[in-house]
Amino acid sequence: MPTIVVEVMPKAELLDPQGKAVAGALHRLGKSEFTAVRIGKRFELTVDGPVSDDLLADVRALAENLLSNTVIEDVISVHMLDIETIPAGGTH
Amino acid sequence: MPTIVVEVMPKAELLDPQGKAVAGALHRLGKSEFTAVRIGKRFELTVDGPVSDDLLADVRALAENLLSNTVIEDVISVHMLDIETIPAGGTH
Repeated sequence: MPTIVVEVMPKAELLDPQGKAVAGALHRLGKSEFTAVRIGKRFELTVDGPVSDDLLADVRALAENLLSNTVIEDVISVHMLDIETIPAGGTH
Repeated sequence: MPTIVVEVMPKAELLDPQGKAVAGALHRLGKSEFTAVRIGKRFELTVDGPVSDDLLADVRALAENLLSNTVIEDVISVHMLDIETIPAGGTH
């Protein structure tokens, strides 16, 4: 069944305490090449039936209104899941 | 600065209560075309300097050991952020 992916990230101008904690952990592990970490959300919506442009527009509206808090988050991407883009060894 | 994206999703065989709650909300809103919702995480690691294959392998290991809980989650993707793949209207 087709799957639509919605990606939401904390706004760039806001602090992301969870990301800051991970960045701190990486530094303590000696991984100083990472200057920042931000943590957002990734939604997979499974659709029963074909995905029309109308449905994608609908999902875009849902992403703004229901799936994200636009005061603190940005919807950065709404796209169809392309099965081929998942690397072979990625899922186990 | 280059950014590496790590995507983590709850394992397919496990319940995802957060996703179930969103799926229930969609149904109550009359959006019956969505059969399932799963909610995972999306990490953006900003790197100071060039991204070598070694560094990407390093991030893959970190993704498994630090960024995800492999008992309940799968790392589904580790890739460079390609600025062009973000749709024009996606960010605001």
